[in-house]
Amino acid sequence: MSAIEMAGQKKLVLVSGRAHPELAEAVAAELGASLVPTDARTFANGELYARFDESVRGCDAFVIQSHTNPINEWLMEQLIMVDALKRASAKRITVVAPFYPYSRQDKKGRGREPISARLVADLFKAAGANRIMTIDLHAPQIQGFFDGPVDHLFAMPVLLDHFRKTINRDDLTVVSPDMGRVRVADVWSDKLDAPLAIIHKRRDPLVPNQVSVHEIVGDVKDRWCVVVDDMIDTGGTIAKAAEALKKNGARGVTIACTHPIFSGKAAEYLSQDFIDQVVVTDTLPIPEEKRFEKLTVVSIAPLLAQAIHEVFEDGSVTSMFEGAA
Amino acid sequence: MSAIEMAGQKKLVLVSGRAHPELAEAVAAELGASLVPTDARTFANGELYARFDESVRGCDAFVIQSHTNPINEWLMEQLIMVDALKRASAKRITVVAPFYPYSRQDKKGRGREPISARLVADLFKAAGANRIMTIDLHAPQIQGFFDGPVDHLFAMPVLLDHFRKTINRDDLTVVSPDMGRVRVADVWSDKLDAPLAIIHKRRDPLVPNQVSVHEIVGDVKDRWCVVVDDMIDTGGTIAKAAEALKKNGARGVTIACTHPIFSGKAAEYLSQDFIDQVVVTDTLPIPEEKRFEKLTVVSIAPLLAQAIHEVFEDGSVTSMFEGAA
Amino acid sequence: MSAIEMAGQKKLVLVSGRAHPELAEAVAAELGASLVPTDARTFANGELYARFDESVRGCDAFVIQSHTNPINEWLMEQLIMVDALKRASAKRITVVAPFYPYSRQDKKGRGREPISARLVADLFKAAGANRIMTIDLHAPQIQGFFDGPVDHLFAMPVLLDHFRKTINRDDLTVVSPDMGRVRVADVWSDKLDAPLAIIHKRRDPLVPNQVSVHEIVGDVKDRWCVVVDDMIDTGGTIAKAAEALKKNGARGVTIACTHPIFSGKAAEYLSQDFIDQVVVTDTLPIPEEKRFEKLTVVSIAPLLAQAIHEVFEDGSVTSMFEGAA
Amino acid sequence: MSAIEMAGQKKLVLVSGRAHPELAEAVAAELGASLVPTDARTFANGELYARFDESVRGCDAFVIQSHTNPINEWLMEQLIMVDALKRASAKRITVVAPFYPYSRQDKKGRGREPISARLVADLFKAAGANRIMTIDLHAPQIQGFFDGPVDHLFAMPVLLDHFRKTINRDDLTVVSPDMGRVRVADVWSDKLDAPLAIIHKRRDPLVPNQVSVHEIVGDVKDRWCVVVDDMIDTGGTIAKAAEALKKNGARGVTIACTHPIFSGKAAEYLSQDFIDQVVVTDTLPIPEEKRFEKLTVVSIAPLLAQAIHEVFEDGSVTSMFEGAA
Amino acid sequence: MSAIEMAGQKKLVLVSGRAHPELAEAVAAELGASLVPTDARTFANGELYARFDESVRGCDAFVIQSHTNPINEWLMEQLIMVDALKRASAKRITVVAPFYPYSRQDKKGRGREPISARLVADLFKAAGANRIMTIDLHAPQIQGFFDGPVDHLFAMPVLLDHFRKTINRDDLTVVSPDMGRVRVADVWSDKLDAPLAIIHKRRDPLVPNQVSVHEIVGDVKDRWCVVVDDMIDTGGTIAKAAEALKKNGARGVTIACTHPIFSGKAAEYLSQDFIDQVVVTDTLPIPEEKRFEKLTVVSIAPLLAQAIHEVFEDGSVTSMFEGAA
Amino acid sequence: MSAIEMAGQKKLVLVSGRAHPELAEAVAAELGASLVPTDARTFANGELYARFDESVRGCDAFVIQSHTNPINEWLMEQLIMVDALKRASAKRITVVAPFYPYSRQDKKGRGREPISARLVADLFKAAGANRIMTIDLHAPQIQGFFDGPVDHLFAMPVLLDHFRKTINRDDLTVVSPDMGRVRVADVWSDKLDAPLAIIHKRRDPLVPNQVSVHEIVGDVKDRWCVVVDDMIDTGGTIAKAAEALKKNGARGVTIACTHPIFSGKAAEYLSQDFIDQVVVTDTLPIPEEKRFEKLTVVSIAPLLAQAIHEVFEDGSVTSMFEGAA
Repeated sequence: MSAIEMAGQKKLVLVSGRAHPELAEAVAAELGASLVPTDARTFANGELYARFDESVRGCDAFVIQSHTNPINEWLMEQLIMVDALKRASAKRITVVAPFYPYSRQDKKGRGREPISARLVADLFKAAGANRIMTIDLHAPQIQGFFDGPVDHLFAMPVLLDHFRKTINRDDLTVVSPDMGRVRVADVWSDKLDAPLAIIHKRRDPLVPNQVSVHEIVGDVKDRWCVVVDDMIDTGGTIAKAAEALKKNGARGVTIACTHPIFSGKAAEYLSQDFIDQVVVTDTLPIPEEKRFEKLTVVSIAPLLAQAIHEVFEDGSVTSMFEGAA
Repeated sequence: MSAIEMAGQKKLVLVSGRAHPELAEAVAAELGASLVPTDARTFANGELYARFDESVRGCDAFVIQSHTNPINEWLMEQLIMVDALKRASAKRITVVAPFYPYSRQDKKGRGREPISARLVADLFKAAGANRIMTIDLHAPQIQGFFDGPVDHLFAMPVLLDHFRKTINRDDLTVVSPDMGRVRVADVWSDKLDAPLAIIHKRRDPLVPNQVSVHEIVGDVKDRWCVVVDDMIDTGGTIAKAAEALKKNGARGVTIACTHPIFSGKAAEYLSQDFIDQVVVTDTLPIPEEKRFEKLTVVSIAPLLAQAIHEVFEDGSVTSMFEGAA
Repeated sequence: MSAIEMAGQKKLVLVSGRAHPELAEAVAAELGASLVPTDARTFANGELYARFDESVRGCDAFVIQSHTNPINEWLMEQLIMVDALKRASAKRITVVAPFYPYSRQDKKGRGREPISARLVADLFKAAGANRIMTIDLHAPQIQGFFDGPVDHLFAMPVLLDHFRKTINRDDLTVVSPDMGRVRVADVWSDKLDAPLAIIHKRRDPLVPNQVSVHEIVGDVKDRWCVVVDDMIDTGGTIAKAAEALKKNGARGVTIACTHPIFSGKAAEYLSQDFIDQVVVTDTLPIPEEKRFEKLTVVSIAPLLAQAIHEVFEDGSVTSMFEGAA
Repeated sequence: MSAIEMAGQKKLVLVSGRAHPELAEAVAAELGASLVPTDARTFANGELYARFDESVRGCDAFVIQSHTNPINEWLMEQLIMVDALKRASAKRITVVAPFYPYSRQDKKGRGREPISARLVADLFKAAGANRIMTIDLHAPQIQGFFDGPVDHLFAMPVLLDHFRKTINRDDLTVVSPDMGRVRVADVWSDKLDAPLAIIHKRRDPLVPNQVSVHEIVGDVKDRWCVVVDDMIDTGGTIAKAAEALKKNGARGVTIACTHPIFSGKAAEYLSQDFIDQVVVTDTLPIPEEKRFEKLTVVSIAPLLAQAIHEVFEDGSVTSMFEGAA
Repeated sequence: MSAIEMAGQKKLVLVSGRAHPELAEAVAAELGASLVPTDARTFANGELYARFDESVRGCDAFVIQSHTNPINEWLMEQLIMVDALKRASAKRITVVAPFYPYSRQDKKGRGREPISARLVADLFKAAGANRIMTIDLHAPQIQGFFDGPVDHLFAMPVLLDHFRKTINRDDLTVVSPDMGRVRVADVWSDKLDAPLAIIHKRRDPLVPNQVSVHEIVGDVKDRWCVVVDDMIDTGGTIAKAAEALKKNGARGVTIACTHPIFSGKAAEYLSQDFIDQVVVTDTLPIPEEKRFEKLTVVSIAPLLAQAIHEVFEDGSVTSMFEGAA
Repeated sequence: MSAIEMAGQKKLVLVSGRAHPELAEAVAAELGASLVPTDARTFANGELYARFDESVRGCDAFVIQSHTNPINEWLMEQLIMVDALKRASAKRITVVAPFYPYSRQDKKGRGREPISARLVADLFKAAGANRIMTIDLHAPQIQGFFDGPVDHLFAMPVLLDHFRKTINRDDLTVVSPDMGRVRVADVWSDKLDAPLAIIHKRRDPLVPNQVSVHEIVGDVKDRWCVVVDDMIDTGGTIAKAAEALKKNGARGVTIACTHPIFSGKAAEYLSQDFIDQVVVTDTLPIPEEKRFEKLTVVSIAPLLAQAIHEVFEDGSVTSMFEGAA
């Protein structure tokens, strides 16, 4: 036999884009590792560059990036990093995108529209990604857009844990802010052993033109309402929901949400009186000027770290959520 | 110049699997064409065979198949036909699947599940399909599963047209049978200028274990309810919805649905007293023994024919539904 | 260095479709393993579902399925299982198809035919299979249809072993049932140190229209004939061959065949007087009603188990057949 | 509408490698076209170069090359031409390979062998070929190696036509030179209305070590034998077959073969006394020094030209062989 | 025959991203067409959206975008547009990228670097682009990065035309600003019938650390120097080259360049005294604040329009530059 | 848990084509391994064959071939070996091509040319190669032609080491033979601490038609010139460069070059008086008749062996050249 033999070995490396380094560092710390030192730069004309300062040959590489605004910069940076890892002979490349970019453009609502969420999956594939890890997809079908394994994590255990520690649960009501979120709210209702209410937005037959009424299904009077949602963008919609709940007699309103996009005047909208508390995770960075008094941020890093650990060690990511979703 | 030149020409051919030849023939008749004569057979051990009796070289081919039970036979037959077209130099191959198979397995609800709806898209691609034409997808995101154009048609105009001709619209109420269908019901409500009601299924807090209550949001008393859904499988769920509507005072209940899967005892369930009428299209064949007195079938063939015509002539499929969805 | 390191490890898992669980269990038993518990089901409308009850992340997975009638069901079930394994991050997926489905449609005999055997290879690839393991392909060229490694096993050692133990070899003659099988029969003839005879079917010049004569090349008078073939479908052809041998003075006729498809009236045909014995393997399940007195079934499980073991341990499958083919 | 419209047009261009320009020119002449002037060269270190002197943009291009020795040069030249056509925006590229290279390495006969015939198909695909046109494949399964349409032509009508014109058919016997060619010989036998004989090579039990006996099945005494084969390589095997026929009393022996590879001493072998005539086509060039007195070459150019014409005009290639194979 | 036939037709459509609409409009005007009205938008969180207001089914679509800063936005917008065209059944999609983004990262200069120019080609392919049209690539090898046709245009004829009209050519010297541009400068020298000079940057042996000396090869004294380059980014390098030329006695310095990136203080650098004139094309938009007195912009639109016209009509793009490069 | 577990292991195997077995053996010896015994043959008609005599299942395989004349034979042999490895379940396949074939055809210089260097990368990919290892690419952009990792090695350290040992460095001048090689010569100049000179070939304005003048930039009088180049083909160009250097007063001329292609009369050209020494590596074999007195060959085997070792052990190839390029 002519071969040279040696024992196999696995190496995990974490690399991070520049969108939200605090999260990547927290994940690394949880894992007892450190991020691969990386020279990432933006040139004068806007082109990006990235180079890893250590060998990644044969590694199981995880590329962490948060897709916050400017979202296309960070997406491109991540693609460039994946390309560099591929050409540097990384063994397996997992894109870690806590908030999946373009997840709301997941279908052709009308003719001649793109399906940008599928495009993003294809771009990751083209760059060389073997796997995707993400949290609370806007539509779970997006898992099917990628031609390979997708680890779909749920922030709910992290948020629930926070609620269990901080909120008196006797008079809670879980609220779905619209019809599309009822399934998730149902699970929360079950986990918190609290009744469910649903907000149904519909046109007011008495008022012409797109004016909508927030009809509340279920009892919210004198209840502390926990409105659960996957993301808060400008915050306008969720603020109107909170207002409607208060008008219907709610004692308090807490917003629980995974992805704090916080575009435009989100901080202002969410600081209004009829909202008592906003709890989010740090899948996206929240700059100082977007923070406000009522905001609580719980860290998603331990969850990501555990999932990365399971993936690396061929454990089970599913079992992390047993009974959870 | 050494080339031989001639004027270009386009040829449209229709081929059909054996699942629902009546539909394919009706489509052909609408187009003023005939189906390509095909030798399709099942061998003794269950293997399938198909061969076209006329040249399809350079054609714009549409392969029509209805994915009824035995659904895997018909899927495989269609894949084999696509393969035969590819190898026979068809120029473009469009899979026409009025009811998209496995559309309900469109995500990993739990770990280690397949995403069969994506698998089906990949199988069509692997066989050689360039395009897919389908009607009323269970989730519109499935469009993004196929790596190419998907013509997503809506049966609503066909069904609405039937309603406008046959039903007195003064006391109609449109009913969504669950939270997931509210968006579609909303459009119906708008088109029929009728109010909307929603059925919310939830656990009964008074009764332990999975017993559910059908809570009705909106006014159905003394109204004629039109329950709209994309598919009826065993009919059990929709029958319970109808029962709940009648218990809440509905004057009549009409079920309007695109895909009549009609598995198991569907005919029996749907013949119960609290259902007054069931209107479906013929995207799937309904054998004699599955038909029942209250059933009305409206043909989807004109819609399919028009869409195929638009695709062939590079017209607009979107404009067929302008203002419709 | 920022990486986390650990020793590499390999894990083999066996999963099985529902076509022939006995075979899969026998293979697992040979390997000292057990099948991964799997929830495989058929829904009311014929759609299939499969989910594995244990983590398969990072595993070297073998998906065993027998392609018996209804062959398209079992093919689709296997494709769905491969899809589920891919999305569950299995490291390598080997399709184990003891009888390769559609192997007889391996070329375009006429224009506008499919090449279904290639299509099947493409479907396995599209679903995510990395490798195929199969036994006694109808045409060895099918190996070239799959874009990846194919482990092509031979049942001959298993069948020969049975013959050596049970048959007096002094008056044996190996018979090829047609021109296409001469090469395989040649090897048998060599291994059993027995002369070879060939049956040549040709039109009878004296009788008009497709009536064929079985001309026998070689001496069969007073010999015990072992007719070797890769598969028995309806059994009609092989029965006629046996009849011809007896008419030409053969003392006895044993049929040795790898794949017992046994369609239609196979049991009846094969029970006729001029056949003394039929020996097959269990690459396909033989239900009770297809069994008959003269039938002997030898198990292919040890061979499959050994090949799987060699593949898993990076040993040599070829050496299992050294001198054999 | 913003678009610019114009009538579509199709253009056929023929380009040729340097292996057998006479054939390509004859095809062009049949079509009333001329070959695209091409600068094809070999550099000092053996690298090849090709550039077309006229625009091929939007054309239906056919790249004709004969795979004669040095076969890898000509294969590479054809691949380079396909690449150049692809990058020059040809609309469709058909590889015309009258003799498919490496067609005899069509399976893994033993472990760790290549399947070079599949490799060749993959190389054509990788270079950018959309279709393949070829003649008399060694195994028809090779059609399934290419992921796209393969036009598989048969030289038989051309050869038969020659025979019908030149040979007295009363005492003809068609001979298959081995078991693998019986199916083709059967068709010839039918077309010429002549009986069939088969040569079976087997080991001589009386002589140790690989000495083979040519056993003849069927009557050849006082008959004029037409031995049909797909290719003649060194000619050694076919010469032995002819010798055996003469020893068994054949009155005359004509060899009819599609591909005149004529390696090594073929001309010498085929000039031996027991061969009366050799009829081949010009799928491969036959240099002056390989020609011999008994050789007749019939041109395949009209057949290729007709097939190319049918492909270009979306006619039927199959119908060219109706009743032929 | 069952087919429906009709005459083929070709339709050209132009769509444009939002980076440089003036250029796209100018191209459309040259072609006598108009841009397809498009709803292109940026959402609050930075995600982009694009939808075409007219059918593009069956069209030959050209997607024009200029990759100026913010370059990743415009790249992503173009990818989204390509995806939308693909899903809307455009027949062929050509990416028109006058300045190819990331063209300077065309190799791994060091380990673990990306090859971003190849990544960009892969992203275009993944989105659905069939072809690329671009101008004056930084390295012509980038053509080989895309798996399909690339129309590589040269701005030189446009710039030369300007020079011939505006500059007295008696005392011109063409200058290559570094070793890498000598080949292009050589062609200019030939076309303008003017001598060539080359600037060689090297370290000054007398001064430690990266200080470079501009050594001038060729005679520039009392000559009017035309420095030709493919792009001007910050302008620092070219300004130093101009300074060196003046120090060596040049009478005047004109910069001729295709791509005016003009990052940072480019306008300031290029306005310095030792530069007399800067001539660029409008492959990239130049906002008002980046313009300066000595700047002349010649339009590339006629060249792009002509090339698009040739591509659409299957003419020859090469012949546009005959004798030019 | 149903799985069978075992410790992972890695195996390295080296296989070699027949172009330059001495190099492959030297590499193996450096690694303390031996080449896998291989049956590689050329059939009478020029077709190639290769089969490995030992199992390569699960191996990390390196396929070494030198692309010397007949270059297409050796390329095809390597492709066939890659195919055989793929089908034999090798885990990873690295093509080792010390001299990358067709590297000079790396762009479309004119319309309708191939980009053969990209084609070669695509052929390797199609055959099943996962990685490429090569030395001193003609253009570093070729790295981007392959869709996967490319280990690009530099021969410079090997050549420099030879120079440091054998040449008195006081009066050395490094010479770039043309503009395209200045960057590499610059590094040499730095490493040897010697000044740089450049040869600029241009047309002589006094002599009509393509007669070129060798203009020398930099001081070569009384210096020992080391002309560095990546390859010597026929040697004509480099010989003229040497002649020009001597005419300009150079004391001696040493040619240092990586790839000794030595086509045609190279040995004669390079033996001329004005060349004092030629130093090359053995990336390509140099047959006895191509050798000459002034030639020194330094072995590249240690460099290749070290790089293979680093790749196998997931070390760093980059660090082998730290400070080198």
